[in-house]
Amino acid sequence: MTCMTDPGRFFEDFRLGERIRHAVPRTLTTGDAALYLGLTGSRFALHCADSFARTLGYRQAPIDDVLVFHIVFGRTVPDISLNAIANLGYAECRFGVPVYPGDTLATVSEVIGLKENSNRETGIVYVRSTGTNQDGETVVDYVRWVLVRKRDRNAAAPDPVVPKLAEFVAPASLILPEGLDAARWDEVGAGTAKRWEDYEPGTRIDHVDGMTIEDACHMTATRLYQNNARVHFNRHVEAQGRFGKRIVYGGHIVSLARALSANGLAAGFRLAGINGGRHVNPSFAGDTIYAWSEVLACAELPGRGDLGALRVRSVACKNRAAVDFPDRNAAGEADPSVVLDLDYWVLAPRRV
Amino acid sequence: MTCMTDPGRFFEDFRLGERIRHAVPRTLTTGDAALYLGLTGSRFALHCADSFARTLGYRQAPIDDVLVFHIVFGRTVPDISLNAIANLGYAECRFGVPVYPGDTLATVSEVIGLKENSNRETGIVYVRSTGTNQDGETVVDYVRWVLVRKRDRNAAAPDPVVPKLAEFVAPASLILPEGLDAARWDEVGAGTAKRWEDYEPGTRIDHVDGMTIEDACHMTATRLYQNNARVHFNRHVEAQGRFGKRIVYGGHIVSLARALSANGLAAGFRLAGINGGRHVNPSFAGDTIYAWSEVLACAELPGRGDLGALRVRSVACKNRAAVDFPDRNAAGEADPSVVLDLDYWVLAPRRV
Amino acid sequence: MTCMTDPGRFFEDFRLGERIRHAVPRTLTTGDAALYLGLTGSRFALHCADSFARTLGYRQAPIDDVLVFHIVFGRTVPDISLNAIANLGYAECRFGVPVYPGDTLATVSEVIGLKENSNRETGIVYVRSTGTNQDGETVVDYVRWVLVRKRDRNAAAPDPVVPKLAEFVAPASLILPEGLDAARWDEVGAGTAKRWEDYEPGTRIDHVDGMTIEDACHMTATRLYQNNARVHFNRHVEAQGRFGKRIVYGGHIVSLARALSANGLAAGFRLAGINGGRHVNPSFAGDTIYAWSEVLACAELPGRGDLGALRVRSVACKNRAAVDFPDRNAAGEADPSVVLDLDYWVLAPRRV
Repeated sequence: MTCMTDPGRFFEDFRLGERIRHAVPRTLTTGDAALYLGLTGSRFALHCADSFARTLGYRQAPIDDVLVFHIVFGRTVPDISLNAIANLGYAECRFGVPVYPGDTLATVSEVIGLKENSNRETGIVYVRSTGTNQDGETVVDYVRWVLVRKRDRNAAAPDPVVPKLAEFVAPASLILPEGLDAARWDEVGAGTAKRWEDYEPGTRIDHVDGMTIEDACHMTATRLYQNNARVHFNRHVEAQGRFGKRIVYGGHIVSLARALSANGLAAGFRLAGINGGRHVNPSFAGDTIYAWSEVLACAELPGRGDLGALRVRSVACKNRAAVDFPDRNAAGEADPSVVLDLDYWVLAPRRV
Repeated sequence: MTCMTDPGRFFEDFRLGERIRHAVPRTLTTGDAALYLGLTGSRFALHCADSFARTLGYRQAPIDDVLVFHIVFGRTVPDISLNAIANLGYAECRFGVPVYPGDTLATVSEVIGLKENSNRETGIVYVRSTGTNQDGETVVDYVRWVLVRKRDRNAAAPDPVVPKLAEFVAPASLILPEGLDAARWDEVGAGTAKRWEDYEPGTRIDHVDGMTIEDACHMTATRLYQNNARVHFNRHVEAQGRFGKRIVYGGHIVSLARALSANGLAAGFRLAGINGGRHVNPSFAGDTIYAWSEVLACAELPGRGDLGALRVRSVACKNRAAVDFPDRNAAGEADPSVVLDLDYWVLAPRRV
Repeated sequence: MTCMTDPGRFFEDFRLGERIRHAVPRTLTTGDAALYLGLTGSRFALHCADSFARTLGYRQAPIDDVLVFHIVFGRTVPDISLNAIANLGYAECRFGVPVYPGDTLATVSEVIGLKENSNRETGIVYVRSTGTNQDGETVVDYVRWVLVRKRDRNAAAPDPVVPKLAEFVAPASLILPEGLDAARWDEVGAGTAKRWEDYEPGTRIDHVDGMTIEDACHMTATRLYQNNARVHFNRHVEAQGRFGKRIVYGGHIVSLARALSANGLAAGFRLAGINGGRHVNPSFAGDTIYAWSEVLACAELPGRGDLGALRVRSVACKNRAAVDFPDRNAAGEADPSVVLDLDYWVLAPRRV
């Protein structure tokens, strides 16, 4: 009898240059936005209020950028990472046109690199995934590389191809939503008097608050994204697994870090790109997530007096307040509390 | 002083032929759809994407059939089963017109059977419940029978009437939404290349994944349906109860089984009818639900070359993978892991 | 380096007469309504069904009054109570125009009283907070007083000003939504045959059901309101705190008490005002909340034959059924099970 279920791809099932159209397009709604807010507590005014969004030239409050990322990413899981051991990294992520309630997103991935590991048991798959809306416009695209199991250790491996990836997204290439105009930025609504000019390379911010994760919360978030990676949902199997319990989707930590960062970085209203990211350690139910950020660069944007870009590194840590900025030690090893190290661009209003 | 609260009906409060109009009509929204998705992780494309739904002739993504069932069912609880000991069974369930965000549902039940048990402490109540939308169109109707307490052991019992129920819903009587046309079925969007022709009686599918239940999740789902049966919500009382803890609404297991079944049965895009169902064992927070399915019959539909019906039996089990299809033993006793045994019809696209 | 984060105000940062415009306006949607329903299980038909709402003259189902209160309140937390030790009380709360999905709410608070405590470590801040919609119409306003820490014990204190607050909101001053007409009240939809005339001063109602709180549920609710008071979210810090665990937002108990009260008080369809309220004891995950109510007064409303007002005192208690109405003892001390004591007005239909 034919197997009816999807076993997921193993390393040897990927072909360089292959384009994979992922299943289950998704219409995002104010329902998704509300649940995302309930799961993160995010306070970026752009995503909370139509009035605030219109002041900036949006037609209404767009869907949170991180939610868009998770929805686009969630489409890819059954094809790319069902047999993955780990997400190794992200690069070259740019957010495109804003996503509004009612938009329907779909994702396509192209295999841009393949490299078997020397143990022959696993290999690294590089894909560029592109999320588009119902009009075919890109809402986000990014490169991700994943450690994937081989089905058969002896399967032949393709010639190794490792794509050359930009160290960071060039600020001039960040996509500014059409009609965006930060000249009428509403400081009261945003909850901060800080603007682009108030940040400088080296500025460090402890985001102060901590958020404890519950199994019900991270599972609900991950189900909302239809990310069906098994390690997040199955206590019965994971009790026998490496950690003895369910592992929190790394993207949920990104959501929490971004939400926490509103305290200190509320001016960074749009996540415009992700330069790189690493899930340094896993998180579990009961962990309390804190975050701190460091400004890496402040970039002007060509022809824009109303807006600038801030390159930010946000570090999330668990069960340890971020007041002393837990980070790498002299040997370059991350503090054991660190769970996420994310390098990204946000847009921020300038003083006009 | 008058009692202001609703004590619920006891067995002797039901009259054969009585029609009970249930309280609290409910407008379903994209908010309900999003929360349902967050609680189940369901991946049937029809309910996820307006674009996919339009390809099939729907005007937009309809509300998940199982959510419709729970909402219609939830209306009946205060009148029918507040003093119930158990839901004994379901039959003759047919889904009618699709439900779209903005539709308002109400439920009426007719008492179609009554039978006191020989112990005189309880009786069985048979009702046919019909959910309708704001235009009076039926969205789902079904027969359910329930074991209900008597208030007074000595109360006179009516002559026993046990309705004759169809063993299964005749496939020709399944309701096809107006305008439905599966000729343009989108295999990529659906996430499966399988169609009606790929299933045959006896086909068995292990749906592979497991989903662990948390108290927060099943309570939120059951509150969303405004099903106020007390055993699901009250730890304080249930700690002294039969199981020592809250019991998961059996319908939540139906939701999880249906959601899990998308892996292997994604072609079965519409739940068209339920032939019968039994909650074989209770589930509790911490349990991990798996499911497997067996195709019982493949029915052509009169005049339709684009669509066929599959009669499916889905079995949900807990804390045991479904890889070896846990089922009844030779004596007909269910495996102790089995929690749900559901017999239903789905519509699936044919090759055209 | 400048501090980028918001440390919150301490007692000495408040000035009498100061008006504080709070950050992050919020557009409420059917998504918020659905999640609120999923977290409370509320069964007041007005908020559940557009059809029921239209029968009363509303243009569609309005957002639940208690959710409106929490959203308006949530805006104030970062400015008013981030360094608060306790919410001491509420008064003079009146609900204004109904809030519909799509409305955007913002909050302004005026400091109307300040009184340093004799220990010089803390002071009481009285604010009148006003929530408005996008058209500047008031949706709710109320007075709240809070015990706030001083940053510096030696900071000079202003002359004490304690506002004179009404003991209760005069029923004639309650705001009736424009177009409201209860003449066509739908008893079946509401789920009760009781009307305003069926209640009298002294009527007591045990609301029967109990609802157990999970950390995931109260945190999701409180995040939905963007109430970022730290004690609700941070297990890591609270493990070292006064109670050794996270404290449930007192407003969540108000939500549960109101939701439970539908069983016995379904006629009280609109929360029109809050006369006073006290969080008598804290609640924690695992607690089961019960509620009972007592009618304090039945007021006619000027010129209205269709509607009356009921002044209700609802008492929520935990881990103890409300069947015997746990209350104050002879010495005026609250029963240790009591967590909330709320005095409010609801509108109810009259027999016509």
